[in-house]
Amino acid sequence: VPFIYQRTVQFQDTDAAGVVYFSNLLAMCHEAYEASLSAAGMDLRRFFSPVEEVYPITHAEVDFFRPLFCGDRLTIHLNPRQTQSSDFEVRYQIYLSDSPEKPVSEAMTWHIAVDSTTGSRKNLSQPIIHWLAQYGGDNQPVRGNGQPSNPLGKPD
Amino acid sequence: VPFIYQRTVQFQDTDAAGVVYFSNLLAMCHEAYEASLSAAGMDLRRFFSPVEEVYPITHAEVDFFRPLFCGDRLTIHLNPRQTQSSDFEVRYQIYLSDSPEKPVSEAMTWHIAVDSTTGSRKNLSQPIIHWLAQYGGDNQPVRGNGQPSNPLGKPD
Amino acid sequence: VPFIYQRTVQFQDTDAAGVVYFSNLLAMCHEAYEASLSAAGMDLRRFFSPVEEVYPITHAEVDFFRPLFCGDRLTIHLNPRQTQSSDFEVRYQIYLSDSPEKPVSEAMTWHIAVDSTTGSRKNLSQPIIHWLAQYGGDNQPVRGNGQPSNPLGKPD
Amino acid sequence: VPFIYQRTVQFQDTDAAGVVYFSNLLAMCHEAYEASLSAAGMDLRRFFSPVEEVYPITHAEVDFFRPLFCGDRLTIHLNPRQTQSSDFEVRYQIYLSDSPEKPVSEAMTWHIAVDSTTGSRKNLSQPIIHWLAQYGGDNQPVRGNGQPSNPLGKPD
Repeated sequence: VPFIYQRTVQFQDTDAAGVVYFSNLLAMCHEAYEASLSAAGMDLRRFFSPVEEVYPITHAEVDFFRPLFCGDRLTIHLNPRQTQSSDFEVRYQIYLSDSPEKPVSEAMTWHIAVDSTTGSRKNLSQPIIHWLAQYGGDNQPVRGNGQPSNPLGKPD
Repeated sequence: VPFIYQRTVQFQDTDAAGVVYFSNLLAMCHEAYEASLSAAGMDLRRFFSPVEEVYPITHAEVDFFRPLFCGDRLTIHLNPRQTQSSDFEVRYQIYLSDSPEKPVSEAMTWHIAVDSTTGSRKNLSQPIIHWLAQYGGDNQPVRGNGQPSNPLGKPD
Repeated sequence: VPFIYQRTVQFQDTDAAGVVYFSNLLAMCHEAYEASLSAAGMDLRRFFSPVEEVYPITHAEVDFFRPLFCGDRLTIHLNPRQTQSSDFEVRYQIYLSDSPEKPVSEAMTWHIAVDSTTGSRKNLSQPIIHWLAQYGGDNQPVRGNGQPSNPLGKPD
Repeated sequence: VPFIYQRTVQFQDTDAAGVVYFSNLLAMCHEAYEASLSAAGMDLRRFFSPVEEVYPITHAEVDFFRPLFCGDRLTIHLNPRQTQSSDFEVRYQIYLSDSPEKPVSEAMTWHIAVDSTTGSRKNLSQPIIHWLAQYGGDNQPVRGNGQPSNPLGKPD
């Protein structure tokens, strides 16, 4: 089952065009990611410190289907999935809380597990695998060659 | 009675020193301000749009008593008070949610009411006065002349 | 010829992992976009105001090939290209200024021209076409079906 | 002599009211601070890492005399001064580059030197004293007791 995160668009998220500045939506998705890790029992201060292992983002993308305004209440659905022994991806669907039938935006981030001391890739650790089991699911389209393609399509 | 706002420190709030980047704490206080306006019935999209009247910040300040880390749960107490017919100030006390006896930070913002079309000061409107009555209080130290002291001095 | 933008990584760009927070790299690319518009004679305040026409971003993506640190000097190459009568995309290659042989990151944004009053798509206006001619070029791989695919590949 | 820093207001700095979001001006001042440290020979990555000594901000304040818009070219004058053996303050005057007679904003930050391993205050190190000598000056109004006044009061 996906993890659900509620977030109100803040004044700081907006820009002089009157709507959410594009890259701030990715930061909101990262907030949902942090909340899901915390809900799975992770200590965030430790998780995001450069000790033992880190999970840097290697790729991020986001599609916008309509503008978002200050005060808009958003519901973010987060869905992670392991893609390799050392990699996972997280998909985000962003809805206006009061119209849940169609997302207003979709996003995705790819993460790899890196050993902080050696700098090399490593297998995902047990707590992450637990988190993947908790919030991941098979409701994701499986991609043929194990390569993420462009999952989001183009807005019409 | 003050307005109470809960906020978890996010990864994005931190910097390479491992703690919250200083000006982000003011942005968290502004979130509390937005939440208090919303709780008092204001429409945030309209309130922060450049229509009719706006409430720009003319001064802000913040004191830090200890560093804050990713994942820290904060409780912000917001307390506004009218300082002139066209002005109000908001004071913020920021606590770690699990040690409420002593703030970890304090902040303050000053706001003036401005008519968007003429650009000149105006009296506070009724909704703001209602909000001030709801969350303001006399638990603030009164300063001698009822004028906020200007600690930076006025530009000559 | 691409537009070249110089940018030093600032403390605010970093996070508690000690490196640039992922979505801030997209904001740096947007800075390069703004600088290129300004260099082409656009008035930025007017360009980004919700008057007449606006160019919202409908898609953004970014790949990271290595972490970036506070003080790193970056050189961003910006290359725009028209993709439809109403659309353009901008590609960004981000280099460490002192090792220009291999990008440390790549990004892309898609933009559409929208009439502010009607809210519907419109053809790109003359100043944008002029800007496209100035900084665009044929050094981009042409994609068969007019659909942007995933141009960035996976970091090895 | 003060350090001079040039900065164009970016779209990301603005909010839905059409002007610079208040706390972003403090971040621009911090950019000027970073540029001055770099100009004095400091390595920024090392300076802002939690190794040996750090210089956290204990207080920040900012006054706004007029709104700032996307594309505005700013000139920031930075002027530091030692206030105690372990403390310094930095004052910032922000001008529109094309009207240098009157600042549009003023700001101030206080910093203390802290030993990273013990967590206790320490004397300013030689590179910081060198930087203070280079960009500081006696053009600052001296306050009575050589102690920065604390306009927010100390928490009890």
